[in-house]
Amino acid sequence: MATAADQNVEFVRTGYGKNLVKVLVIRRQGSHHYIIELTANVEITLKSRKDYLTGDNSDIIPTDTVKNTVHALAKIKGVKTIEQFSLDICNHFLTSFNHVLRAKVYMEEAPWRRLEKNGAEHAHAFIYSPEAFRFCDVEQNLSGTPVVHSGVRDMKVLKTTQSGFEGFLRDRFTTLQETKDRCFCTSVYARWQYNKVQDVDFDAAWKTVKETIVERFAGPYDRGEYSPSVQKTLYETQVLVLERIPEVEEIEIVMPNQHYFIIDMTKMGIANKNEVLLPLDSPSGNITGTVRRKQRARL
Amino acid sequence: MATAADQNVEFVRTGYGKNLVKVLVIRRQGSHHYIIELTANVEITLKSRKDYLTGDNSDIIPTDTVKNTVHALAKIKGVKTIEQFSLDICNHFLTSFNHVLRAKVYMEEAPWRRLEKNGAEHAHAFIYSPEAFRFCDVEQNLSGTPVVHSGVRDMKVLKTTQSGFEGFLRDRFTTLQETKDRCFCTSVYARWQYNKVQDVDFDAAWKTVKETIVERFAGPYDRGEYSPSVQKTLYETQVLVLERIPEVEEIEIVMPNQHYFIIDMTKMGIANKNEVLLPLDSPSGNITGTVRRKQRARL
Amino acid sequence: MATAADQNVEFVRTGYGKNLVKVLVIRRQGSHHYIIELTANVEITLKSRKDYLTGDNSDIIPTDTVKNTVHALAKIKGVKTIEQFSLDICNHFLTSFNHVLRAKVYMEEAPWRRLEKNGAEHAHAFIYSPEAFRFCDVEQNLSGTPVVHSGVRDMKVLKTTQSGFEGFLRDRFTTLQETKDRCFCTSVYARWQYNKVQDVDFDAAWKTVKETIVERFAGPYDRGEYSPSVQKTLYETQVLVLERIPEVEEIEIVMPNQHYFIIDMTKMGIANKNEVLLPLDSPSGNITGTVRRKQRARL
Amino acid sequence: MATAADQNVEFVRTGYGKNLVKVLVIRRQGSHHYIIELTANVEITLKSRKDYLTGDNSDIIPTDTVKNTVHALAKIKGVKTIEQFSLDICNHFLTSFNHVLRAKVYMEEAPWRRLEKNGAEHAHAFIYSPEAFRFCDVEQNLSGTPVVHSGVRDMKVLKTTQSGFEGFLRDRFTTLQETKDRCFCTSVYARWQYNKVQDVDFDAAWKTVKETIVERFAGPYDRGEYSPSVQKTLYETQVLVLERIPEVEEIEIVMPNQHYFIIDMTKMGIANKNEVLLPLDSPSGNITGTVRRKQRARL
Repeated sequence: MATAADQNVEFVRTGYGKNLVKVLVIRRQGSHHYIIELTANVEITLKSRKDYLTGDNSDIIPTDTVKNTVHALAKIKGVKTIEQFSLDICNHFLTSFNHVLRAKVYMEEAPWRRLEKNGAEHAHAFIYSPEAFRFCDVEQNLSGTPVVHSGVRDMKVLKTTQSGFEGFLRDRFTTLQETKDRCFCTSVYARWQYNKVQDVDFDAAWKTVKETIVERFAGPYDRGEYSPSVQKTLYETQVLVLERIPEVEEIEIVMPNQHYFIIDMTKMGIANKNEVLLPLDSPSGNITGTVRRKQRARL
Repeated sequence: MATAADQNVEFVRTGYGKNLVKVLVIRRQGSHHYIIELTANVEITLKSRKDYLTGDNSDIIPTDTVKNTVHALAKIKGVKTIEQFSLDICNHFLTSFNHVLRAKVYMEEAPWRRLEKNGAEHAHAFIYSPEAFRFCDVEQNLSGTPVVHSGVRDMKVLKTTQSGFEGFLRDRFTTLQETKDRCFCTSVYARWQYNKVQDVDFDAAWKTVKETIVERFAGPYDRGEYSPSVQKTLYETQVLVLERIPEVEEIEIVMPNQHYFIIDMTKMGIANKNEVLLPLDSPSGNITGTVRRKQRARL
Repeated sequence: MATAADQNVEFVRTGYGKNLVKVLVIRRQGSHHYIIELTANVEITLKSRKDYLTGDNSDIIPTDTVKNTVHALAKIKGVKTIEQFSLDICNHFLTSFNHVLRAKVYMEEAPWRRLEKNGAEHAHAFIYSPEAFRFCDVEQNLSGTPVVHSGVRDMKVLKTTQSGFEGFLRDRFTTLQETKDRCFCTSVYARWQYNKVQDVDFDAAWKTVKETIVERFAGPYDRGEYSPSVQKTLYETQVLVLERIPEVEEIEIVMPNQHYFIIDMTKMGIANKNEVLLPLDSPSGNITGTVRRKQRARL
Repeated sequence: MATAADQNVEFVRTGYGKNLVKVLVIRRQGSHHYIIELTANVEITLKSRKDYLTGDNSDIIPTDTVKNTVHALAKIKGVKTIEQFSLDICNHFLTSFNHVLRAKVYMEEAPWRRLEKNGAEHAHAFIYSPEAFRFCDVEQNLSGTPVVHSGVRDMKVLKTTQSGFEGFLRDRFTTLQETKDRCFCTSVYARWQYNKVQDVDFDAAWKTVKETIVERFAGPYDRGEYSPSVQKTLYETQVLVLERIPEVEEIEIVMPNQHYFIIDMTKMGIANKNEVLLPLDSPSGNITGTVRRKQRARL
């Protein structure tokens, strides 16, 4: 089948694996229990393509085995951070087989928060607290160094003032009014690359990025800080992250502008002075930027 | 059209309105801003059915007007709680028109949490914190008293021990093993009815129900409390809510049992002692119960 | 625990079971294969409440057994229609045990469509075709007759003309303009009750309801039919269903009005005559009505 | 702010625009109406980064204007295909301004299907028929040729036989059994690149890819065709697409294996011979591959 055609085509990329592999790992220290729940997508690329070309499956590590491997490694290696566990999975596939060219893991952590009351921690009860999701991805080639990214997604923040948008370009399709004071709401996505793999405190780094985003967005607690555009707030956040975390080499941030419009009630005879607003489902503005440490080698 | 047929059919129920009406209300006290964001479904029932029968629209308050009314009342009345605002909306439709038989409002509040750091509150910045959603519904008939329900939904909690399930009935289809110690995870739904409408502190009541659910689920912080079944934990929560909040007349709770299974690794030569578990998407157990204050009048 | 309090509360309702039980049933006639895939929520209510009150589980048929029972009955009884299978499940629980007071099943069928080409049917290949979803629910009490409902959900239809809305009531909050010609889009939900359980062709009835909804919505293929309001179109559909299917006793229809607004381009110097419209995510109008055969007995 | 830091960082990539811009376009030929509904994400990249660096907005074409532009172009240019309309949008931004470096559009078409009955087409009524979604993306740099991709997503197909998986590698974590006959279900994603932009019949190409995927999956209608692995079926589909459509240069296909497991009923004393299966929500296998025409120039 398709043999004549084979002469005329070539592979650009192949890969296979298991998506949505789930695990809850419980670690017990006496009556104090620690948990980490994760979902992993694992993809590997093999040296040969005979499975695609001829249906010869002899090189295929079944996706069911990929799932079993994640479960088994969770038990054997433990899961300290999703980054470290993803590194362990990549390492397993690249060292246990000599025909795996590449391993790639995307992992998310379920946002469980230990119950706390007046400073007291509960020994074994948790609440699902999705203020922000943590994810990572690790990619490694045979005889290569793993590339580790971590990320925050779906952290939604809103401020009712200290945001404006003025002085923009106008053309024949522009109907937007300038504003010095608007409500600003965004659901932040950030993903950054580490410049090393060993001896990184992934938990601390994630927490610092998350807090830096909130800090730049909100400004000082008593008066906030004026944002002249999403672009500027996004960039300042990136600069501050790179300043604070030496292990971060590059950071991408996406900040959709989820609009809230002042409802015009003049036709109803009511003066609404920025008090009652309409949250829009769509469309949303979308601002993104990726920034990295200056590459000195190239100077 | 359909006139002959009309002789043979009768109405059981009619209603119309607007779903997913959204509003953000900002209240400013100097530089300190308070927000409440809500989504409302409003339904009204008219005296006549001539719109259904003959296409005569003269009694119809358009759904667009229903939306405008929610916006306008948010400005005119303000929104202290979603319960009070729902009462205001029902009252508006029943008193502004003499051909509205019934008004019904379902409302949800967006779970915005003010940013806080070391006890300091931010003046105007918030984070979306969906640990639990708050909703209410109010239904009122012409010349009747409004019936107010409030609720919590999608509050997900998990405990790694102090839950078991033993001594159940076995038939030919039973394959479940008894257990004294399992992981228990549930996403709680609760909805309760108030026995009064005036002078209820809806905010305090909601907070108390939420905390009571968590308290009964988790037990004492140092050692938890054993739950022999979801049924018992659910019922004890209800009894405690009715004890604590005199204004609550009746409470329904639904506690799905979102299963985590211990992964059997014996075929892989690994002993997994309740350390690595598999979170299941489906199916889920589902346990529910509704309990009310004993009706003394009937004795 | 909670014993004093028990004196003061009473049960309104209890129930438990398994949600999202999934099954694919394959029936083979030679090389021609028939499939039905379903998702079931099963709830039963027991005579005693000692599980809630004291944690005595001896009457509980575990939710895991409920799942196994659905699987086993799918094999033993087969699945001809979701309605008949739901009846079989209710019957099983009410006749196999003497302490089950009530059984309730909600079931949905996955919309698989056999591949067809030029009238030829594929022997065993199917495509997922979610133009409309079919569901049913059956509820039966001990020594009672089962009550069977069937339904259609999420059938989305749109017409670009032959819809208007005029002559409605205006108050101070009304800003809507009258229109003789608008785009009308709705996602239909319908649920009807049968007046008998035996010898009903559930497949034919479902198909007839679905086609009647489309027929009344669209009108004649060459010119359509004018709808003066959602209310009238909804009611005429109900009358026609009751005319066509004697086994249907009562039918509820919900027709949200999913708005498409003409985009005003005058500020951009463009005349847009009902050509470019904006689909709205929210809010949506929502119109509902329930109609039944006239109850002669009461005359 | 952040000026010292600016010395140490550099931009990798910037961009902004509007996501989820929605439009319904109605084209009327007498009483016969044609519709196309689409959702667009538009992103542009500007020459300068002074908005990010200093909050100078003077180069920013507001995202609101981007939305207006999509609306206006839909009216001015019309929408023949989503590919052509995306090309028009890119062209607008690159030619109307001299400081736009890059434009990128992702667009999806809503799967409306005209009502038909016995071969007769309805003049203006449609049903939402999401058997498969069509999307495209176009990316163009200043003074560059646009790169056009089209795609199919979420086309779910299932076959009850003629699929197996044997002869795979086994290691210590492998527990999977070999099978010559399994149920195979997948939700196909395909995305291909065109080697030209002018004079492509995008509608015909999309239809051919969709039909080729179904054809290779299902095989002959009377007996199907055996698939020894997802990999082989995926690759054969790609080869056939490249054979059939000269304008397609490269094609990526992703075929998750959405598992259906035979339910083991032996503990319940029932022999289930591949008749009752359990659809799994997660995990899913995931097989992907990208193939292109052989690059003769490089030989």
